[in-house]
Amino acid sequence: MPVFASDMLSSVAYAPDEILLALSLSGAVALTASPWIGLAVGAVILVLVLCYRLNLRAYPGGGGDYEVASRNLGTRAGRAVAAALLVDYVLTLAVSLTVFASYVGTAVPALKPFRVEVAILGILVVTVVGLRGWRGIRRVLAIPTYLFLAAVIVTIVVGIVRVANGDVPTAATSGLSVIAPDGEPGPLHGAAAAFIVLRAFSSGSVAVAGIETVATAVPNFAKPRGRNAANTLLLTGLLSAGMLIGLTWLTARLGVKFVADPAHSLAGPGGQAVAHADQDPVIGQIAAAVFSGAPALALIVVVVTALVLLGAANTAVEGFPGLASRLARDGFVPRQLATRGDRLTFSNGILLLSAAAVVLVIGFQARATDLIELYLVGVFLSFALGQLGMVRHWSRRIRRIVSGPARRRMMAARAVNALGLGLVGAVLLVVLVSKFTHGAWIAVAAMVVLYALMGLVRRHYARVDAELRASPDDTTARTLPANTHAVVVVTAIHKPTLRALAYARATRPTYVNAICVAVDEEAAERLQRRWDEMALPVPLTVLGSPYRELVRPVMNYIARIRRRSPRDLVIVYIPQYIVGRWWENILHNQTVLRLKSRLLFVPNVVVASVPWRLRSFDRNREALVARSGDIDEDVLGTMR
Amino acid sequence: MPVFASDMLSSVAYAPDEILLALSLSGAVALTASPWIGLAVGAVILVLVLCYRLNLRAYPGGGGDYEVASRNLGTRAGRAVAAALLVDYVLTLAVSLTVFASYVGTAVPALKPFRVEVAILGILVVTVVGLRGWRGIRRVLAIPTYLFLAAVIVTIVVGIVRVANGDVPTAATSGLSVIAPDGEPGPLHGAAAAFIVLRAFSSGSVAVAGIETVATAVPNFAKPRGRNAANTLLLTGLLSAGMLIGLTWLTARLGVKFVADPAHSLAGPGGQAVAHADQDPVIGQIAAAVFSGAPALALIVVVVTALVLLGAANTAVEGFPGLASRLARDGFVPRQLATRGDRLTFSNGILLLSAAAVVLVIGFQARATDLIELYLVGVFLSFALGQLGMVRHWSRRIRRIVSGPARRRMMAARAVNALGLGLVGAVLLVVLVSKFTHGAWIAVAAMVVLYALMGLVRRHYARVDAELRASPDDTTARTLPANTHAVVVVTAIHKPTLRALAYARATRPTYVNAICVAVDEEAAERLQRRWDEMALPVPLTVLGSPYRELVRPVMNYIARIRRRSPRDLVIVYIPQYIVGRWWENILHNQTVLRLKSRLLFVPNVVVASVPWRLRSFDRNREALVARSGDIDEDVLGTMR
Repeated sequence: MPVFASDMLSSVAYAPDEILLALSLSGAVALTASPWIGLAVGAVILVLVLCYRLNLRAYPGGGGDYEVASRNLGTRAGRAVAAALLVDYVLTLAVSLTVFASYVGTAVPALKPFRVEVAILGILVVTVVGLRGWRGIRRVLAIPTYLFLAAVIVTIVVGIVRVANGDVPTAATSGLSVIAPDGEPGPLHGAAAAFIVLRAFSSGSVAVAGIETVATAVPNFAKPRGRNAANTLLLTGLLSAGMLIGLTWLTARLGVKFVADPAHSLAGPGGQAVAHADQDPVIGQIAAAVFSGAPALALIVVVVTALVLLGAANTAVEGFPGLASRLARDGFVPRQLATRGDRLTFSNGILLLSAAAVVLVIGFQARATDLIELYLVGVFLSFALGQLGMVRHWSRRIRRIVSGPARRRMMAARAVNALGLGLVGAVLLVVLVSKFTHGAWIAVAAMVVLYALMGLVRRHYARVDAELRASPDDTTARTLPANTHAVVVVTAIHKPTLRALAYARATRPTYVNAICVAVDEEAAERLQRRWDEMALPVPLTVLGSPYRELVRPVMNYIARIRRRSPRDLVIVYIPQYIVGRWWENILHNQTVLRLKSRLLFVPNVVVASVPWRLRSFDRNREALVARSGDIDEDVLGTMR
Repeated sequence: MPVFASDMLSSVAYAPDEILLALSLSGAVALTASPWIGLAVGAVILVLVLCYRLNLRAYPGGGGDYEVASRNLGTRAGRAVAAALLVDYVLTLAVSLTVFASYVGTAVPALKPFRVEVAILGILVVTVVGLRGWRGIRRVLAIPTYLFLAAVIVTIVVGIVRVANGDVPTAATSGLSVIAPDGEPGPLHGAAAAFIVLRAFSSGSVAVAGIETVATAVPNFAKPRGRNAANTLLLTGLLSAGMLIGLTWLTARLGVKFVADPAHSLAGPGGQAVAHADQDPVIGQIAAAVFSGAPALALIVVVVTALVLLGAANTAVEGFPGLASRLARDGFVPRQLATRGDRLTFSNGILLLSAAAVVLVIGFQARATDLIELYLVGVFLSFALGQLGMVRHWSRRIRRIVSGPARRRMMAARAVNALGLGLVGAVLLVVLVSKFTHGAWIAVAAMVVLYALMGLVRRHYARVDAELRASPDDTTARTLPANTHAVVVVTAIHKPTLRALAYARATRPTYVNAICVAVDEEAAERLQRRWDEMALPVPLTVLGSPYRELVRPVMNYIARIRRRSPRDLVIVYIPQYIVGRWWENILHNQTVLRLKSRLLFVPNVVVASVPWRLRSFDRNREALVARSGDIDEDVLGTMR
C-alpha cells in the first residue's frame, strides 16, 4: 500500500496551506472557515474514492483515466488525458520537491533562502534513483510513509486532546493578523466571498491528486488485484480525508496563518506589517505548537513529511514507464517505450520530464502555490474526462439492461460518477477562470502541444503500418533471390578480416569476393601481395580511390553488381570492433558505420556486421553486461 | 597562387600594427625605428623563403615541418610539430577574424563596439563554408587576394610619391603623442631598449606565419609541382617583405601611432591623455592619409584587407583535412580522418577547431595582440623543429659525401637552414620569455595536452594492431563453422519481415528460425495465428517475456543455441527501417539498434541488417544522397 499511497497522502502536506492561503485573500476572519473547507475537500476525496472504486470494478485491469477515457470517449479524449497525465508527472515532481524544499527549510532554517536549489537537488536525486531503476527503493520509501501517517495522526490527536483540555497550543503565527491584499481587512460578502471560498475549496482539492496513482497501479498489487487495489484506495482516501479535516480544524483552533506574501500580508499586534515575517508550512506550524514542549518531536514530524514528499516524487518517476508503455502500445509515443522491462529505454523520457520540472521550479522560483494551480489543471482535466467516460460507460450498459437490481446498481454507479464529474468539473472551472492568465495557461499550452505531438506520432505510425501491411497471399517470403553475392570489406589482413572471410564463405554464397579500397596506393599494393602470399581462399579486388575516399568506391562497386544482376542478393560483410570503453568508439568503426548507413540505402543489399571483440571488451565484459541491464548472468558465460 | 598565399599575405594586415605597438611601449621616439624593424622582418621572411625552398627541394612531396621533423628527428618531434600546427589552425582562425573585425570596424564605425561578435560571426561563416566543402570558394577567394595586393601596392606607391613630392599626408593619429606606460616618455637605453626592439621584431615576425601553408600545399599545385611551389613561395615572400617594408616606412613618415591602450596611451598636443581616443589598424590609417582626397579609395583598401583575412581563415579550414589525414596515417588522430576525400569525416574536427577559436576570441575579448603572441608560439615552435630537422637532414647527407660541389652545395644549404633555425629560435625565445605568463602558456599548455593525447591515441592503435595481427599461416579463413543458424527477429508480419525471411532462406542456412518476443501476449498469439494462416515457410518460436522486455529473451535464446552448438555460426537477421527524415529515427529502430549492439557481444554471432526503405526515404532519396556527399549520381539510379 504505502508505495502508491505516498503520492496521495503527501498532498496533505500542502493542501491545508493552500486552503489557508486562498482564504487569507479576504483577510483573517475568513480563516475560521478553513475546517469547513477541509470537510468539503474531505467529502470530495471520499466521493472520488467511490468513483475510482467503480472504475476499478468496471476495468479490473487498471482503472486509470486514460483507459476509461480511451475506451468510452474515443482516442481523442484518451490522448487529451495522456497529455494531461504527462503534464501531471512533471508537476508532481515540481510540486512535491518545491514543498519538500519548504519542509527542509523548516527543519534547517539556514537552507530557507535556497529553496530553489534544494528543490532542484531533490529532482536530480529522484531522477538519478529513477534512472538506476533500483527496485529496493520501494521498500525503503515505505518506511517514511508509515512514519508520516503515524506522525500526523499523533500530532492531530495530541492537538485535539490539548484543545479539549483547554490547554490550547499557540502557533507561531497566531499572534499575527492577516492584511487582505486590497487593504480591506473586513469580511467579504456575497459573490466575492463565495468566490474566495470556491477558490479555497478548489486549491485544497489538490489533496485528491494522487488518487489516480493508486487506481492505475493495479498490475503491481498482490492478487486478488482488483479487490486489494479497491481496499487500498478506500483506506488511503479515509486517511487522507481524516488527516486533512483534522489539520484544518487545528489550523483554526491554533490560529495558524499562511499567506502568499508573508513579508507584506502579516501584521503584528499593532496592525503594522511585520518585516522579515516568515512562515513555516502548516504541518510544521501545527507540530511546533502541539509539541511546544518537545521541539525534537516537531522536528521529526517535519522530517518525515519531507521524506514522504520525496517518496511521492519517486512514485511519479516509477510510474512513468507504465504510462509510457500504455501510450506506446496505442502509438502515441515512440514505440520502443512499449517494452516496459527494458529500463534504459525510458531514460530519455525520464530525463525530459525532470528537465521540464527543473525549468518550472526555476521559472516559478519554487513558489508552490503557483505550481499547484498548474498541477490542478492537469489533474482535474484527466479526472473530468475519466469521470465523463465512466458516466458514458454506465449509460451504455444501462441501455442494454431493461430492469432488475443490476440496472438499479448501474444507475446508482452512474449517479456517483456524475457527482464526481460535477465536483471535478467545478474545480477545473474555478482554477481555469481564476488562474488562466496567472500561469494555468502554461499547463494548458503544454497539454495542447503534447496533444498535437501525440496525434502526429500516431498518424505517422498509422501511415507506416499501412505502407508495410502484407496481404495474406504475399509471396515475398517464398520468392528467393536468384543468387547471393558475398562481399567482404577489407581494410587490412588481420584476424577480424580472416574471420569475416570464414563467415562469408560459411554461408556458401554463389559468388564471394573481398574488396579493398586503395586510399593509400602503396598500402594497397602491400595488402595485395600479402593476400597472394597467404593464398587466402577468396579473390581480392582493389578499388581505386583517386580522391582518397572510402565510401564512394565501395558504393560504386555495389552499384556495378546491382546493375549486372539486379535480382540477386548482395550481403556485405563488414568487420566491426567491439570495444570496452566508450572513447574507443571514437578511434574505431567510424568509417565502417558510415559505410553501413550508406549501403542500407541500396535495394537487395544486406549489411552483416562481423564483430571482433577487442581485449578491452573482454576485460570490461562483466561491467558492460551489468550496465546494459538486459543480459542475464548465465548468458555472460556464453560470451567467453 | 593566391589561394595558399592569402594566409601569408594577409599577415601584412597586422604585422606593422604589432611592430608599432611593441615600440610604443618605450614612447613615441622609438616609433621612428619601425622601418628598420620592418626591414629586419622582411629579411627574416626572405631567409625563411630560402629555407623552405630547400625543404621543398629535399622533400618534393610537400616540405611541411611535420614531414621534415618526423623524418629527421623522430616521431616525438613530429608529434610536437603536429600539436603546434593544430594550435596554429585554431589561432589562424582566431587571429585572422579578430583582425578582420578591426577592419570591419574601420569600414563601418558603428560596428566598432561589436568586434567580438563580428569576429565570432566571421568564424561561424568560415566554418559553415568549410563544412559544406564548396570547391568554388577557392576561385572566389582568389579575387580579394589580387585586389589586396593591388590595393596595398598602390597605397604604398602613392604614399611614397606624395612623400617624395613633399606633399606628406598626415595620419589621423599623427597629431597625438604616445605616453609610455611607465609614464616616462623619454627613449630607453641599453638592455631595456634592446629588449623593446627585440619584442617589436618578434611580434612583427608574425608576418612569416603563412609561409608553411604554401610549402605544405604542394600536392595542390599544377605540375611541375615542386618548381611551381618554390616559385610561388619566392614570389609571395618577396611581395610580403616588400609590402611590410613599404608600410612600416610609411608609418614613420606619416606619424602613424598604434598603441595597446588607445584610451590611456595617446596624448593630445597639450600632453594630456585623449579620452575616447580610437585608432584604426595601420593599413586603414595609411590608406585614409594617402587617399585623403578620396575616402572611397581608402574604404576599398580596408574592405579588400578584410576580405583577404577571411580568405586566410578559410585556408586554415581548407588545410585541416590534409594535416589530419597525414596525422591519421601516422596513428596520431582517429583513423577515419585518413580518408581525406570523405569530407563529412572532418566535420567534427573542424567544429572542434572553430569552437576553440570562438573560446579564444571571447576569452581574449578579440584583442589581436594577445592572440598573436599565442599564435607566434605555435608558429615558431613548428618552424624551429622543421629547421632543426633540415639541419640534421643535410648533416646526414653531408656525412655520406666526401667532397665535391654537391657537398659544398649541401653545406651551404645547411648554413641557410641553420640561419633560419637561429632566427626562429630567437623569436620563439623572446615570445616565451616576454609573454609566457601573459597568455603564451595557454598555447604551450594546449600543445602539451595535444602532444600527450596524440601519444595515447598512437599507443592505443599500436596495441590494437598487435592484438589483431594475423600470422602468415593463420587458417581462420579456411576453418569454416560447422553449421549456420539463421534467426529472423520478427515484431510483426509485414513486408520487411517477409523480406528478411526470404533473405535468410536465400543464404541456405543449416537451420532457419523466426523468433518473436511476447511483450504483449495477446498480440503474440494473434501473430502466431496469422503466421500459421499464411503458412510462412519458416518455423516461428514465440519467446515469453514476463517483464515485458525485448532484448533479454532474444539474448537468452541466442545463448541457448550457443550452448547447444558452440562451434556453429549464428546469423541474426533484423529488419531495419530506412527513413527519410532525421526525426523518424526517434520513432523507429531504437529497440532494434539496442538489440544489435547487445548481440555483437556474443561470439560466433553475425548481425545482418535487412533494410526496408520507407516511402519517406524514397521521397527524400535525392536530397539524402546529395547530403551524404559520398554517393555518385549514377549510383542513385541503382537505388530505385
